[in-house]
Amino acid sequence: MLEAPPIALASSFRIVLEGCASSDLDSIKPLEHAARRACATAGLTPVGEARHHYAPHGWTLVLILKESHLAIHTWPEYGAAVVELLSCRPDTPIDALAEIFKSELNAAGARVSRDEINVKN
Amino acid sequence: MLEAPPIALASSFRIVLEGCASSDLDSIKPLEHAARRACATAGLTPVGEARHHYAPHGWTLVLILKESHLAIHTWPEYGAAVVELLSCRPDTPIDALAEIFKSELNAAGARVSRDEINVKN
Repeated sequence: MLEAPPIALASSFRIVLEGCASSDLDSIKPLEHAARRACATAGLTPVGEARHHYAPHGWTLVLILKESHLAIHTWPEYGAAVVELLSCRPDTPIDALAEIFKSELNAAGARVSRDEINVKN
Repeated sequence: MLEAPPIALASSFRIVLEGCASSDLDSIKPLEHAARRACATAGLTPVGEARHHYAPHGWTLVLILKESHLAIHTWPEYGAAVVELLSCRPDTPIDALAEIFKSELNAAGARVSRDEINVKN
């Protein structure tokens, strides 16, 4: 007998941003702005939020979404940031979102990866 | 000239839990308990939190950690949950954490995967 196809739970996306100005990564405003713009562009709906500033520097901003969650972590000391997005919408326009984060955080480069999360049927 | 080795930003861990009882996945208490126990076991320190209950069912719980973040999403309709943990500690005992979540959520199985996040030096 043929096995039932797996159930797709979510798509997991990651954007690694490099070559950012440290000052852009140690302020919550550009992160918030980038996150809100990304959600609006992709039709993702924030329903909860948490944030934390690390000593001596660096931020984590997490938005819970109707479609799962988006987390941004920054490492000002390396000029780097990582965006992780879990979304139940496989058609999430991740390349457009990477461009938004790259531009809002003045990054030299953005690397995108994705992975599908499935469970047995 | 040799290139400098990459900078390790964080390790990204995922635990996919299958065959859970739907009732365990639609209550925040077991999720919170599992998350707190996992953090205590791994020496991870929660510094922020957000949660959301979905209609008609399912939870997202996100803990911001001193070491990055942990997010749990549940799909009671499929008896499934996904834990995503980003940690700046590569020695995070992920197999022990998977056992904790499996036991607390009464899952039939737990699949673990990990991925390293690096940037150019």
